[in-house]
Amino acid sequence: MALIEPRTLKGFRDYAPKEQLARQAMFNKIQTVFEQFGFLPLSTPVLEYKDVLMNKYGDDEKLVYSFTDMGGRDVAMRYDLTVPMARFVAQNQHELVYPFKRYQIALAWRADNTQRGRLREFYQCDVDAVGTTAPIADAETIACVYQAFVKIGVPHIVLRLNDRRLFNCFLDLVAADTNQASAIIRSLDKVDKIGVEGVVADLREKGFTDAVCERARIYLGLGRGFTALDSAVAVLGESVAEGVASLREIHVLLQQMGVPDDVVVFDPTIARGSDYYTGTIFEWYLKDNWAWGSIGSGGRYDNLVDQFSERSLPATGASIGIDRLFEWLEDQGLLSQDLGVEIVVLNMGAEYLGEYIRLVTALRAEGLRAEVYYETSKLDKQFKYAESKGARIAILLGEEERKNGTLTVKNLRTREQVTIPESDLRALVQAL
Amino acid sequence: MALIEPRTLKGFRDYAPKEQLARQAMFNKIQTVFEQFGFLPLSTPVLEYKDVLMNKYGDDEKLVYSFTDMGGRDVAMRYDLTVPMARFVAQNQHELVYPFKRYQIALAWRADNTQRGRLREFYQCDVDAVGTTAPIADAETIACVYQAFVKIGVPHIVLRLNDRRLFNCFLDLVAADTNQASAIIRSLDKVDKIGVEGVVADLREKGFTDAVCERARIYLGLGRGFTALDSAVAVLGESVAEGVASLREIHVLLQQMGVPDDVVVFDPTIARGSDYYTGTIFEWYLKDNWAWGSIGSGGRYDNLVDQFSERSLPATGASIGIDRLFEWLEDQGLLSQDLGVEIVVLNMGAEYLGEYIRLVTALRAEGLRAEVYYETSKLDKQFKYAESKGARIAILLGEEERKNGTLTVKNLRTREQVTIPESDLRALVQAL
Repeated sequence: MALIEPRTLKGFRDYAPKEQLARQAMFNKIQTVFEQFGFLPLSTPVLEYKDVLMNKYGDDEKLVYSFTDMGGRDVAMRYDLTVPMARFVAQNQHELVYPFKRYQIALAWRADNTQRGRLREFYQCDVDAVGTTAPIADAETIACVYQAFVKIGVPHIVLRLNDRRLFNCFLDLVAADTNQASAIIRSLDKVDKIGVEGVVADLREKGFTDAVCERARIYLGLGRGFTALDSAVAVLGESVAEGVASLREIHVLLQQMGVPDDVVVFDPTIARGSDYYTGTIFEWYLKDNWAWGSIGSGGRYDNLVDQFSERSLPATGASIGIDRLFEWLEDQGLLSQDLGVEIVVLNMGAEYLGEYIRLVTALRAEGLRAEVYYETSKLDKQFKYAESKGARIAILLGEEERKNGTLTVKNLRTREQVTIPESDLRALVQAL
Repeated sequence: MALIEPRTLKGFRDYAPKEQLARQAMFNKIQTVFEQFGFLPLSTPVLEYKDVLMNKYGDDEKLVYSFTDMGGRDVAMRYDLTVPMARFVAQNQHELVYPFKRYQIALAWRADNTQRGRLREFYQCDVDAVGTTAPIADAETIACVYQAFVKIGVPHIVLRLNDRRLFNCFLDLVAADTNQASAIIRSLDKVDKIGVEGVVADLREKGFTDAVCERARIYLGLGRGFTALDSAVAVLGESVAEGVASLREIHVLLQQMGVPDDVVVFDPTIARGSDYYTGTIFEWYLKDNWAWGSIGSGGRYDNLVDQFSERSLPATGASIGIDRLFEWLEDQGLLSQDLGVEIVVLNMGAEYLGEYIRLVTALRAEGLRAEVYYETSKLDKQFKYAESKGARIAILLGEEERKNGTLTVKNLRTREQVTIPESDLRALVQAL
């Protein structure tokens, strides 16, 4: 039989045990925080009817993995977690109690060009509240993402906060239609890289009039920080008053929720690409690492459920870019180190196997991760195995130890080795 | 815009928060046990090259979801976790340290007929050791699945243990080719339902000779339990000696690992459908609920990696049928109840919002799951919300409480209500 070449698809990857342990530890911390805020998990299928997923992603629709199944149904792999959640809410709207607060950490697929930190199969990590227009809902999704960042050890983050209504006022003033609006948003999205004058030049190049370019300069000229809001109504007109008031209210709520004030910045350049946002919009960045791009984002989208239901169900949510964040934590050496097994009992001969098993069984009963090496291989091979599993200590029990009722314990970090009475093992392990 | 009907595909389902919380709690317990035994998590992609997955599942291959992607590649959604794991091991064979002990709890897809407890999208939960022929490896996968059952609260389970070599001796004696062997296995698989004579009749109906039927009667006539092994060599011939010795060795190892003796039964009727098993084979059943079918299974498969690699990598593994098990636990009322949020602070008016936020923030800092109701709705609506989240207590803070520095605390299980100084809250919560 010819061998089949073992390989993975481009944009898809394995996570070996060490990476996967660190990922699971990160997911667990995020889940714990989300649940502390009263968001509970929802699970939806990977495959959906194609018409359920389509017509929501604009030009990106060509990136959706879709096919015809054996029953002749047009099906698609989920492209995000938001549309399936909207489908779930519409489908169960009469059974749900509102606000419906859910989180979901699960895979999604996009047949996009691949690059560092961007795969075709990737995790999404979403927290959303549906069926409420209360600003506290917006503030809570932001605050719980902040607490999740703290819990996983991401230092120095910035929330760049804006409101789609400010942005829309600007768009209304320049009388942009949907296509123009998309082009303008794409230009504004580049402001971090090319600056205000760069954006203006970009708009001019796209054929926008001087009036539009001037408006863009005034809008972006508002500047960052909440003091910039003081002049917003004067500069942009009375129609932004509602958005400004909402931003101020959320700012106060975030302070009450313990999000430090230097983390939160009003930033008029945040536009968020998706059409569906209607109010609060925001992006999270690493303070001293903006080049890594956004590590989270979100906002209010009051009309997304409408396409599935007569009933209007306003919603707000936030998302953590956990693949990118994971890569950054790995790059910075900030991932949890104490993972893997704790103890490997080395195998000095088949005649001791019963004792080894008794030992690891007792250690496991103490809640420890412990294993016995299966074969009676050379000791250096066994030590190499123990280190590959991340073990902190190796235990040796041979003729000498059996005779004396002792164990030889080697600390694999310090290379120190001690021989102790077997009864001292628990104390030694607890001191690790 | 026309509404799109919100619906899921046949064989695919959502898990609402209450169900998903219970599932996650179950997964976490299983993971904890697997890691205590030194098995670490591996993650492989959902999509693989089609040729990597195919030619392993026999007739069932038509159930694999496959399609051509946008890049013209023939791809398939994984059908199980074993073949992708074999692909991973072959691909990384020179970097891995052996034995490679991994677990994976993840979705797989089969376009099969749906029935109770059998969906097209379902979880697999696998634990495997690759690169070892040691019987302790077989015993460990069995023992760790046993401990996982104990940890999730499944009482009264039975391990039906056999060895493919016994079974193969019987097949060799009747000179069965592969097709005949499959037909014989399918007949034997029915023995629980139709008994030994039923199996013999079934074989006769399929056109097998009297000699084959008589051999089947002798083989099945061995009976269950380890004492049946005493006569195995006499009844079946010298060629089963190796399999018998291996079963006895695993039996002793399981005793040493603390698996109670009344849990483990030698059972010659266990055949395991898949071609790839080569040694130990087993199935787990609920002792007083055999009708629920197998809730786990596994065995030794020493040749599976061969199709990807020149190097031989023997392996052994076990699998828990967690969807079926979950359904049984749900049916029996054995799922964890104390899930969801613990505390909901009711909303008596916008003027108290700052105090509510301070309160829930303090409770969350204590590690509790606590939330404030977003809107100032009628109290009965708010109580209904708190109950829907699984909350144990609701806290009321209005004019009276603010004036006196107190909180009114309602226990949602007992309906008791007390008013306490705010400073007593922590003590009250800890007593819950």
